[in-house]
Amino acid sequence: MTSTETERLTGANLLGGTEVPGTTGAFRAVNPATGATLEPEFHEADAATVARAATAAWAAFAEYRATDLTRRAAFLEGIATEIEHLGETLAQRVIAESGLPEARIRGEIGRTTGQLRLFAEVVREGSWTGARLDRPDPARTPLPKPDLRQRRIPVGPVAVFAASNFPLAFSVAGGDTASALAAGAPVVVKAHSSHPGTSELVARAVLAAVRAHGLPEGTFALVHGGVETGLALVRDPHIRAVGFTGSRQGGLALAAAAAARPVPIPVYAEMSSVNPVFVLPDALAERGASLGAEFVASLTTGVGQLCTSPGLVFLADGPGADEFVTAATEAIGAASGAPMLNKGIASSFAAGVERLTGTAGVRLAATGTAGATSCSGDPHLFVTTAERFRADRALQDEVFGPSSIIVRAADTAELLALAGELEGQLTATVHATAADREIARPLLGELELIAGRVLFDGWPTGVEVGHAVVHGGPFPATTAPATTSVGTLAIERFLRPVSYQNVPEELLADEIRVQNPLGIWRRVDGKVTRD
Amino acid sequence: MTSTETERLTGANLLGGTEVPGTTGAFRAVNPATGATLEPEFHEADAATVARAATAAWAAFAEYRATDLTRRAAFLEGIATEIEHLGETLAQRVIAESGLPEARIRGEIGRTTGQLRLFAEVVREGSWTGARLDRPDPARTPLPKPDLRQRRIPVGPVAVFAASNFPLAFSVAGGDTASALAAGAPVVVKAHSSHPGTSELVARAVLAAVRAHGLPEGTFALVHGGVETGLALVRDPHIRAVGFTGSRQGGLALAAAAAARPVPIPVYAEMSSVNPVFVLPDALAERGASLGAEFVASLTTGVGQLCTSPGLVFLADGPGADEFVTAATEAIGAASGAPMLNKGIASSFAAGVERLTGTAGVRLAATGTAGATSCSGDPHLFVTTAERFRADRALQDEVFGPSSIIVRAADTAELLALAGELEGQLTATVHATAADREIARPLLGELELIAGRVLFDGWPTGVEVGHAVVHGGPFPATTAPATTSVGTLAIERFLRPVSYQNVPEELLADEIRVQNPLGIWRRVDGKVTRD
Repeated sequence: MTSTETERLTGANLLGGTEVPGTTGAFRAVNPATGATLEPEFHEADAATVARAATAAWAAFAEYRATDLTRRAAFLEGIATEIEHLGETLAQRVIAESGLPEARIRGEIGRTTGQLRLFAEVVREGSWTGARLDRPDPARTPLPKPDLRQRRIPVGPVAVFAASNFPLAFSVAGGDTASALAAGAPVVVKAHSSHPGTSELVARAVLAAVRAHGLPEGTFALVHGGVETGLALVRDPHIRAVGFTGSRQGGLALAAAAAARPVPIPVYAEMSSVNPVFVLPDALAERGASLGAEFVASLTTGVGQLCTSPGLVFLADGPGADEFVTAATEAIGAASGAPMLNKGIASSFAAGVERLTGTAGVRLAATGTAGATSCSGDPHLFVTTAERFRADRALQDEVFGPSSIIVRAADTAELLALAGELEGQLTATVHATAADREIARPLLGELELIAGRVLFDGWPTGVEVGHAVVHGGPFPATTAPATTSVGTLAIERFLRPVSYQNVPEELLADEIRVQNPLGIWRRVDGKVTRD
Repeated sequence: MTSTETERLTGANLLGGTEVPGTTGAFRAVNPATGATLEPEFHEADAATVARAATAAWAAFAEYRATDLTRRAAFLEGIATEIEHLGETLAQRVIAESGLPEARIRGEIGRTTGQLRLFAEVVREGSWTGARLDRPDPARTPLPKPDLRQRRIPVGPVAVFAASNFPLAFSVAGGDTASALAAGAPVVVKAHSSHPGTSELVARAVLAAVRAHGLPEGTFALVHGGVETGLALVRDPHIRAVGFTGSRQGGLALAAAAAARPVPIPVYAEMSSVNPVFVLPDALAERGASLGAEFVASLTTGVGQLCTSPGLVFLADGPGADEFVTAATEAIGAASGAPMLNKGIASSFAAGVERLTGTAGVRLAATGTAGATSCSGDPHLFVTTAERFRADRALQDEVFGPSSIIVRAADTAELLALAGELEGQLTATVHATAADREIARPLLGELELIAGRVLFDGWPTGVEVGHAVVHGGPFPATTAPATTSVGTLAIERFLRPVSYQNVPEELLADEIRVQNPLGIWRRVDGKVTRD
């Protein structure tokens, strides 16, 4: 960055157009690849600042939720454009704060802007409003049938907790923010302390779009801080829902705080997942060695810091099993450590692999070359038996980073039994050939009950943003299995249905007027129609 | 009932085809209108019986969720037919156990069977499966676009807690059970102890349909019991969601137990609501007296034991205000007490009106004629000022029964302010003429934020079962404001989306196959289509 660009960063909390310098908890970002401290100094938002942001969000809510769909969509597209205008300044700051490689960051910028534009399309298409009309029948006996309309309205201001591992796509203007703004909900983001500069740059882009589209200032705010700041935000009465991506501990703490409020609110927390992979016998016999190598490539992507990293592989003894293990062992041995996102993550990872290394019945098969930095996450591969795995529930716990366990079962019956004993997951993967169908079918039946996404003959890393994706799943993968944090269905998290009975036509929103002025898909007397 | 029909009741817990007599907690139903004890003796299910029912439900889940839509719909219709076959036996037992008038009970039988048939239609129509297809693009760069399909699957066995106030429509085969069975979820009902005989009759009807349609026995079970039985059910690991209608205390206790499980589950609890009614100035001037009388008619329906009973009326001083209060006062004075559903409800109601009677600044305007029985709920009407109301949060607490408070405000600005300060509600009502539009519009904007259903120029009692209704709302009306417990949208409570990535066509369910063999509405590449 040039000095001019660096100067754009003030380290302040951004409440609409107002910059509120923090008074406590000074911190700076650290480049995990070099250990260098980055300017400027940031400050945690205190309780008063959090309250001010949430109050402003509530004040903006009435006007923002009333924006018509065209204008709201243009605003989302405006955010994408503003992010693109940040250009190299943004890319370089993300790289410096995350230690992630440039290609990944450029891809993530595209994903972030693409996501915003996708939600703009969703907003315009309009069927997310869930419009339903049950036509009246005044002549019905014994009682007249009333005129009922239903639509979904936004729940109110949403608190978004940015993730460390996607400093753009799951952060300030990431999926949670995009889906909440699309729903008509103002957003207060609690920045992740690993990338405060990235957060400020993106927040300024969002605020530029807020101004350009003439929206109320409280539509968006960014606050910095740690646990106390976050809890204050979740407890604020003006906040009506929470989006979170991070650790199980963090997600559960927020969920507990939200449940303890006088008026509880939903927390959509995407937490931990070990993303089991099942390699079925014929696939194993046919391509055991290549699958072993592909597995390690998926595992080491992003230094294993992806929510969908394959942390468990299940295979039955038989042809190809040894080849899989050997190939994976070799690939891990040939891999190198790389800087993790921050020191906390690196030391948690080190503790996790140390715990596994010391676990009875679990064999350390290979480690990669140690990385040069103190933040390095060095690849680890463990092997154990199904029997050991079933006896030790802790082997299902996520070790966030490039570590995985291969679990060797006696036969396919044991594989099926293992599938039924797993905790909730974001993903579950099956490698199978046509000859494996007889096992694949019941296995799919088990895996769809524990995972948000089931995939065949691929690897779980790499989440497609679209309409049919689910990035969610049963607890502990998330606190809200009925939804997703990636893809267009995510908008539903921040909506609530309301029914209008015999309300005069001229007081109703366009989406539920008889004439369907928006031309959207609706359900009229139970039938899907655009009429 | 003839003696033969009475003999059909055994007092046992019904686990599929197995009758499990209880060992503890013997109780009998009591006719609240006469105080007479009714045969036979029932017993609470102990922990082992609850576990057996939940385990059987889980065992049935795989087969039941795989039933095709036609068969599942026919099963729901079969339940309706079996309930109709119960004929007089059922009607007389409900009347004896509830003290409710015959016309109401006959209406409720129709509502219950109608509801089951409506969900059968929903099941057949199929769009509730939420099918989405994002078509693949192997040629996309830099990465091929995967084949993604999404559908909703049932979450697993559902525990349903029957309500006292709708011994059929919100009980054993009521809305929660119908929507869960429609979703493909087995159901374990915890009967309400006010109407155990009704519960057994209806459960036998459901089980007859289970057998007639060749479904696994664990698809449905009925257990009797109190708090301990209920908590054991919610804590059972095989139970995956809870439907509840009842008191705030009860709902919150179940929600806390569900949240404290190793794997938390959602509780869809419909709890308390005071259903505020706003009478705007021109409507008040035009028809104050008749509105006052209509209000009391709504309030005393079902002895005030409806979730949507109007417990608060707000009006501004001005023409018609005194007439409204006078007419309501006279109507209450002319009304009589009638037996409430059980002694517990009657004594809670007595305590509630006693509390209000002793509240400073709250005037007891009228009471109805005292009923003859010890279970009588005698109509009460209170009047207070907006100032007093705003100073005493407890005046928003539900008093379940025929009691209501008229709150007199100085002007319409105060009415609007009051609307913004109310807790979450099932319903909010506005009486307005065209001349009231200027106030009605912002008032509607406030009320849609606090209520699940907003209605104009009617009364909140009487909930239409359809596609566009919402019987839900923000806390404390419910624990799950994003849904409804009445109407077809209720099916969504027991579903969860799953995404299938590159899964071979022949392993996928019909609803997400490319050729759309079910001919249902789906979203393909983001577009709503039947192709």
